[in-house]
Amino acid sequence: MKLSSRGQKVPASPIRRLVPFADQAKREGARVYHLNIGQPDIPTPPEMLEAYRSFGDSVLAYGPSAGLPVLKEAIAEYWEHFAVSVSPEEVVVTTGGSEAILFALLATCDPGDEILVPEPFYTNYLGFSSAAGTTVTPIPCSVSDGFRLPSFEAIESYVTSRTRAILYCNPGNPTGVVYSREEVERMASVAEKHNLFLLADEVYREFVYGDTEFTSAFHLSGLDERVVVLDSVSKRYSACGARVGYLATRNKALIEAATRYGQARLCPATIDQLAAAAGFASHTKYIDEVIQEYEGRRDVLYSGLDAIPGVETHVPRGAFYTIARLPLSDAESFAKWMLTDFRVDGHTVMVAPASGFYASPGVGLDEVRIAYVLNSADLKRSMHILGEGLNAFQSLAN
Amino acid sequence: MKLSSRGQKVPASPIRRLVPFADQAKREGARVYHLNIGQPDIPTPPEMLEAYRSFGDSVLAYGPSAGLPVLKEAIAEYWEHFAVSVSPEEVVVTTGGSEAILFALLATCDPGDEILVPEPFYTNYLGFSSAAGTTVTPIPCSVSDGFRLPSFEAIESYVTSRTRAILYCNPGNPTGVVYSREEVERMASVAEKHNLFLLADEVYREFVYGDTEFTSAFHLSGLDERVVVLDSVSKRYSACGARVGYLATRNKALIEAATRYGQARLCPATIDQLAAAAGFASHTKYIDEVIQEYEGRRDVLYSGLDAIPGVETHVPRGAFYTIARLPLSDAESFAKWMLTDFRVDGHTVMVAPASGFYASPGVGLDEVRIAYVLNSADLKRSMHILGEGLNAFQSLAN
Repeated sequence: MKLSSRGQKVPASPIRRLVPFADQAKREGARVYHLNIGQPDIPTPPEMLEAYRSFGDSVLAYGPSAGLPVLKEAIAEYWEHFAVSVSPEEVVVTTGGSEAILFALLATCDPGDEILVPEPFYTNYLGFSSAAGTTVTPIPCSVSDGFRLPSFEAIESYVTSRTRAILYCNPGNPTGVVYSREEVERMASVAEKHNLFLLADEVYREFVYGDTEFTSAFHLSGLDERVVVLDSVSKRYSACGARVGYLATRNKALIEAATRYGQARLCPATIDQLAAAAGFASHTKYIDEVIQEYEGRRDVLYSGLDAIPGVETHVPRGAFYTIARLPLSDAESFAKWMLTDFRVDGHTVMVAPASGFYASPGVGLDEVRIAYVLNSADLKRSMHILGEGLNAFQSLAN
Repeated sequence: MKLSSRGQKVPASPIRRLVPFADQAKREGARVYHLNIGQPDIPTPPEMLEAYRSFGDSVLAYGPSAGLPVLKEAIAEYWEHFAVSVSPEEVVVTTGGSEAILFALLATCDPGDEILVPEPFYTNYLGFSSAAGTTVTPIPCSVSDGFRLPSFEAIESYVTSRTRAILYCNPGNPTGVVYSREEVERMASVAEKHNLFLLADEVYREFVYGDTEFTSAFHLSGLDERVVVLDSVSKRYSACGARVGYLATRNKALIEAATRYGQARLCPATIDQLAAAAGFASHTKYIDEVIQEYEGRRDVLYSGLDAIPGVETHVPRGAFYTIARLPLSDAESFAKWMLTDFRVDGHTVMVAPASGFYASPGVGLDEVRIAYVLNSADLKRSMHILGEGLNAFQSLAN
């Protein structure tokens, strides 16, 4: 039985497709440092875990399609930290940030429409865009200048009659870039001039280091109907397994459409939503220490990477990823070889080949994404192993 | 800002779109008996609820995209109750049965392809089909003959060059029909002759009453590559809020494709999967009493409905729904009026207009779906209120 064409072609996640090689390495007794996936090792807020324990109903029932009121209220309250007023009615809870992206694309774009996305971008944007029948038009950015956005005119040059939205991630996965207020406004200006939606993926909102300032799409004025903020508890509260996200917008019609898309899948998981509400309620108590921890790791990672000969990278200002250009032509082969063939005292490192984060063909082949979700000691060790591995791999090639 | 065309047109769930009127009735102090939604009042297995309480990790992490091994193993073991051998590798865990339907459609159909579905059918099939860009071709069935399937030739007459699959629900939501072995084989024969997939939604597998026998698509032989079974813990374990389902198939390429679709949304919720595994493990202990309870309710519902003058229905043999034809022309107006205007001692009843369960235009307008998910006393009372309501509504019209 032949599958559908799309079923035959659906690409494996570039973050996950080397997993079988990592599993094999572990079976052979190796320790694998996972820098490939944004799975933090930071403890989830105890209040969230307690919410799972304290569920007291005897029936685990459906909730409303747009989310439990208690969670929508917690989200509205959370936004006060950013001096932004969001009402519960402006929120639709989703199954992970993933579903928020999908609903936003479905509600704003028809099949054949185009979305502009600064590149490199979160790889699953491609998957959701494909599911929605839309096309990703990349706005090329580069590690050489720290992934800054190009000019208004350059961004505008990618707009066609089919363009319906700009989708961007700020702070950026996979780059670690944090857009300045001026850069966010630049995208907003293009959106206004060409009547586009501005879809702002801000799941790393808090993870901004040093004196860098974060600008939410909700901080801009006069864009109310145009802005959709996409969010998730996965990274903020180290609760990737909860699968709770949301979209927020002032656009009432969009809230209504997202709710109806939500009705088809009935509702997000009930107890996970209660846990997410507890997470938002614990925000103030929890987040500062976490940010500090990540900033320390960022420093360790950057100095470790910067010390490896031939590696080009930049100082990531936010999120917990960076992109590094390696002194070789095929980062995927290297990443695989690290798992299959290279060990330092029985240890190796798993990184994500960056080509999967690019839509432009042939770009990013010599780059990897590195997530700094391990403690500083493990990160330091990982950078050492990566350096040794690069050295050995290059010797092989010569 | 205008939404996409599809975003403007996405239909509200026929099960949920009258909810605002029910909410209003409750605000006015009415008690509303919910016969509109398959939300059982049966307690969830304590073992499932205990699984939420006993989660001991400090980090709520992502799981594998295709599901946690412990759950896939529990599912494989569960199938032994049906004398069917399913291996964990033949299972992809999904976020509810909903996502299993979507992944199956994406993997078997391309945009523009058609799926045959016995009608009336679970209304969200339309939503997922729309999301997948496929078209539902209904195979009309009728309450007059208990929703039996038409002949091989009649089914075959709906096949076109774009038909890729037959999707059916057995036992049936919204009809309560349980297909005989011969009927399942009939669909399988059409699928074989025309090289179609057979997508079997069996989420109500256990809920079969009296001496009626259930035939799983996995019970047929020689169809291995062709069959995809869709399933969920929602109804079986009264755990609708867990949002855990799965698809199972012998088709390795389809497992691979579904896994890759799963990678885009990363994973199903972690703790809910642990709970689902506990549910499957408690199956033997739990299920018999539940089936007996539903069978009692079925009897109460059927005799109550059958006693209302002018109502045409049939004896539902499985699941916990039935379709009834009412002696009026617009069941949706009636259902709404029951919520806005009709009370018996401050009580009223909410039913789902059945037109949303039909793709054929103009069909089912005089029918409602009734879910018997309330205890027998409440059901009896509901049937009384429904009868009184029908009487009053007809007097109004005259």
